[in-house]
Amino acid sequence: MHQPSLFNEQSSDSIRLKDAELEYWPVFLSDKEAGGYLSKLLKVTDWQTETIRIAGVERLVPRLTAWYGEPGASYSYSGVLHHPTAWNQELLTLKKQIEQCCGESFNSALLNLYRNGKDSVAWHSDDEPELGQQPIIASLSLGAPRSFQLKHKKDPHLRHKLTLTSGSLLVMRGDTQQCWSHQVPKEPAVTEPRINITFRNIVTNSNQ
Amino acid sequence: MHQPSLFNEQSSDSIRLKDAELEYWPVFLSDKEAGGYLSKLLKVTDWQTETIRIAGVERLVPRLTAWYGEPGASYSYSGVLHHPTAWNQELLTLKKQIEQCCGESFNSALLNLYRNGKDSVAWHSDDEPELGQQPIIASLSLGAPRSFQLKHKKDPHLRHKLTLTSGSLLVMRGDTQQCWSHQVPKEPAVTEPRINITFRNIVTNSNQ
Repeated sequence: MHQPSLFNEQSSDSIRLKDAELEYWPVFLSDKEAGGYLSKLLKVTDWQTETIRIAGVERLVPRLTAWYGEPGASYSYSGVLHHPTAWNQELLTLKKQIEQCCGESFNSALLNLYRNGKDSVAWHSDDEPELGQQPIIASLSLGAPRSFQLKHKKDPHLRHKLTLTSGSLLVMRGDTQQCWSHQVPKEPAVTEPRINITFRNIVTNSNQ
Repeated sequence: MHQPSLFNEQSSDSIRLKDAELEYWPVFLSDKEAGGYLSKLLKVTDWQTETIRIAGVERLVPRLTAWYGEPGASYSYSGVLHHPTAWNQELLTLKKQIEQCCGESFNSALLNLYRNGKDSVAWHSDDEPELGQQPIIASLSLGAPRSFQLKHKKDPHLRHKLTLTSGSLLVMRGDTQQCWSHQVPKEPAVTEPRINITFRNIVTNSNQ
């Protein structure tokens, strides 16, 4: 198990949850830095609208998304093989900074844009087969603070809530995805956008 | 035990610690509001330097302090009875807002100014007799994020670390002061000031 050093200046905040490994840096980026990345990424990102089919009806997903990464880090989704957009300078800089902080390496990133509090993501886990066993997900938040809720899969009474503020970094490891679901619920009072960048490692032939 | 409602929009973040009752609102004030209060309170507060005597030698406490409150909320310190400075408009506004949020009432506030990362407060508990049994302390942070560390008194291996960011509110209740110590360690890399306002209730003849 990854053991963060206790109480040195760069150490993360404590979040102790059964069957999970979470590390949280509330001020990974300063408010100003985070605001700068937010403005830039709102403009330059290749935002997509996705649809999901529920009970035979196609619906728009309540957020915009974009996939970036290395050429080999392709993934299948709804039976179609997708190739990621090539990294831009902002994402490469953030990726390097996050890799240095948490001692991991990533070859792709899913970006989510929650345009306001009407956008959301329902209970799910980041457990796609392409992510391998015990995936490591580094989640950077920019913009409006939003609630991040966790629910244990086998004991749904076991819950945890964290407000992901602008510039914060949450790293999930170990059995977190296997044992917990998470969601970002709608918050009608929120009028400002939030971008969430989740760096991850797609298992490819070369890194398997 | 005070039971916060789970997962509504205004609910606090989860911090579960043995023998403690903690509630944390990371964005009680927006960054802009917090910055405004910081600038104003840096100027208008009646900041004092305090001394402590260690092994017969008088030393300056590594932070500035100020006491505000209602006329009756006096307290003894080093054998001298101190009377608080009367509330100013900023503190009254914050007090009301915090009282509404956490459903408690306060008659005084200790303000600490950590001028930069060289200022600190050593391990202690807010357990002065004037605060009564199971004191309720509402701690608002303005300015530079600083580490807030907790250590269980009977089991010092039981520790928790939280970064108190600008605009955040931490409310401590129940046995927190009796069972845990806390500190704000020096962080040499921090160059900006932080004001911490801890609202509390001094037990007076009229509210005993």
